Amino acid sequence: MFQFKILKQSKKSKARIGEIKTPHGKIITPAFIPVATLGVIKGGLDFRDLELTKTQCQIVNTFHFLDLNRAEEVKKFGGLHKFFKFQKPIFTDSGGFQIFSLGKGAELGLGKIGSIFPENNIQKKKEGGKLVKRITQKGILFRSPRDGREIYLTPELSAQTQIKLGADFIYLLDICGSPLDDLKTAKKEMELSHWWFERFLRIKIPPTQQVFGIIQGGIYKELRKTSTQFVNNLPVFGIAIGGALGKSKNDMYKTISFVNRYIDWQRPHHLLGIGDLEVLEKIIKLGIDLFDCALPTRIARHGTALTFKGYFNILKNQYKSNFEPIEKDCKCFTCQNYSIAQLNFLFKAKEQLAGRLLTIHNLYFLETQLEKIREKIEMGKL
Amino acid sequence: MFQFKILKQSKKSKARIGEIKTPHGKIITPAFIPVATLGVIKGGLDFRDLELTKTQCQIVNTFHFLDLNRAEEVKKFGGLHKFFKFQKPIFTDSGGFQIFSLGKGAELGLGKIGSIFPENNIQKKKEGGKLVKRITQKGILFRSPRDGREIYLTPELSAQTQIKLGADFIYLLDICGSPLDDLKTAKKEMELSHWWFERFLRIKIPPTQQVFGIIQGGIYKELRKTSTQFVNNLPVFGIAIGGALGKSKNDMYKTISFVNRYIDWQRPHHLLGIGDLEVLEKIIKLGIDLFDCALPTRIARHGTALTFKGYFNILKNQYKSNFEPIEKDCKCFTCQNYSIAQLNFLFKAKEQLAGRLLTIHNLYFLETQLEKIREKIEMGKL
Repeated sequence: MFQFKILKQSKKSKARIGEIKTPHGKIITPAFIPVATLGVIKGGLDFRDLELTKTQCQIVNTFHFLDLNRAEEVKKFGGLHKFFKFQKPIFTDSGGFQIFSLGKGAELGLGKIGSIFPENNIQKKKEGGKLVKRITQKGILFRSPRDGREIYLTPELSAQTQIKLGADFIYLLDICGSPLDDLKTAKKEMELSHWWFERFLRIKIPPTQQVFGIIQGGIYKELRKTSTQFVNNLPVFGIAIGGALGKSKNDMYKTISFVNRYIDWQRPHHLLGIGDLEVLEKIIKLGIDLFDCALPTRIARHGTALTFKGYFNILKNQYKSNFEPIEKDCKCFTCQNYSIAQLNFLFKAKEQLAGRLLTIHNLYFLETQLEKIREKIEMGKL
Repeated sequence: MFQFKILKQSKKSKARIGEIKTPHGKIITPAFIPVATLGVIKGGLDFRDLELTKTQCQIVNTFHFLDLNRAEEVKKFGGLHKFFKFQKPIFTDSGGFQIFSLGKGAELGLGKIGSIFPENNIQKKKEGGKLVKRITQKGILFRSPRDGREIYLTPELSAQTQIKLGADFIYLLDICGSPLDDLKTAKKEMELSHWWFERFLRIKIPPTQQVFGIIQGGIYKELRKTSTQFVNNLPVFGIAIGGALGKSKNDMYKTISFVNRYIDWQRPHHLLGIGDLEVLEKIIKLGIDLFDCALPTRIARHGTALTFKGYFNILKNQYKSNFEPIEKDCKCFTCQNYSIAQLNFLFKAKEQLAGRLLTIHNLYFLETQLEKIREKIEMGKL
């Protein structure tokens, strides 16, 4: 039912083209996994919109389903694919990222790699930072960002919830650390994660779902080595590189390169939570097959488009009479039907349509960039 | 280019089926005109969504284009139809309604008919109420709800702006009074409106646009009579019944009935700002051909669906496992693809998709109700 095949290995780099077969169709890698927090891509997109974006798959956040207390209803309806009318492969994360994003990340205003994007600071700090109450051997005690009630996330609950949700790919519960963690903390977090992995894998997982393990260890080579070898030995379909990735993009590349010495190359590699335009080629050259990131869709809702020249802020007043599309050569629904001036107007008018249209563009644009990268690999140019 | 033809006159009531021809296709009346405040229906709907709703036309608010200061850009692009990709007939109101909605309506927390809907109170009061600074012979001085700057709306500016926007149907600038106005105030407002109508009509209007006059006079018969006769004599395509309509639905029906004694029956009649499900049949029986209302789309964004049994609040927790569509027999995109439980989830998750889907349903549902009413008129049953 599931299979990962490497279709083409670059000779110039670790880049490769792969194919992941699932009960919901295949994913051609390297592939971007858009974030559909609570089952749908934010910004009001429906399943028809997603068909317009060429999106191959999506990742859903288990923690938010626990928070909303609605995993049971999704199960009753037949799982995420049916509930949200998305018939392509779905991933669910484990909830471990929220240990960072609602915990240290929020307290310190940090992103996964230091803080690449200024908006991370603003957004995270706003959320408070006191939502991770306690991490014990058993699990993590969260305070719900929605209603303040306690949520006790354990590896068992993560597994059971992900089984209810019924995604094609599910993730072991880990502790996502902070880039500022010292060796001792990072080691403790890694060891606890490994213990949780074992407990998670004791739960019987249906054959319609496959598991990704997660390499921890923060910025510490000895830990990354241990964790990579540990995860290699787990009976998991894919391997994710998780946790803190350093204080800069360069740190991140170094971490991946180091992990690459030990990682199992026969399994798909997922770089968790990273996927902006600027790092795309570089991480793919480091052998990353899958990457998810909320950035392309989040910036879309706030008026920033992805373009060949990088990020483009459509909100500036000077664009109110610019009747060109965002990208002349872009074949997306938005560029084919709307100009910069129209989008600028809709943003100024605070119409939800604005964010929806830009989300469609950003997702489509990323996909076309990936098509080009895959073509480069195919032609031996990357 | 424009024509109004009465296709069928009921013998049982003043109800009639009509056809309005425009350069952007025809409208079969009685017809509902959804409110597209700034050119698009709120809730993130695009032009494809609207095609799914059977919506025949829409009305856009001139005041908000002045407030946003973007009429010029719309003109440069070729007008509202092109700018917002809506190729059906468009109406623009004059800005006169905001004299009430940002003025007395906001101060007193009132709707056009007293206050039928409790949410009117909440919404209006929130907006402040000090946004109408002065009404003089020349025009109205507004304070922008957006940025606080002064906007001086005159009949000439209303006409020029509506010409720039390029809707098929434009409206004379009137003063929309309050249901609490005394005779003296209502008379002054009516006389000023009439004076503004004459000034408005001195502006040259392109042959691609037709004008609606507006009957004023509040709840006072002598004023309504005068105003009806005045508007009958204007060279306008259609006649709207505007202004305050009393303190109850019954007051409103009485006002329409009274106006009906004098109104020109060869022209289409538009009841301004009223159009909820409950009054539909009654106002159509009183000869109303057109009616616009923000209610069906506004309540949709807040989780209330239109159904055969009336208003249905989808947010209640008890619906989280209700996997039936809103209406089993409804052929709308939403009912064909989503259940109540899914919509309930999307609202709880605060996903914009929720409001968008419910807006599609409400608009479609209203259209099917109107089809049924037109069929009743056709069969001599109404």
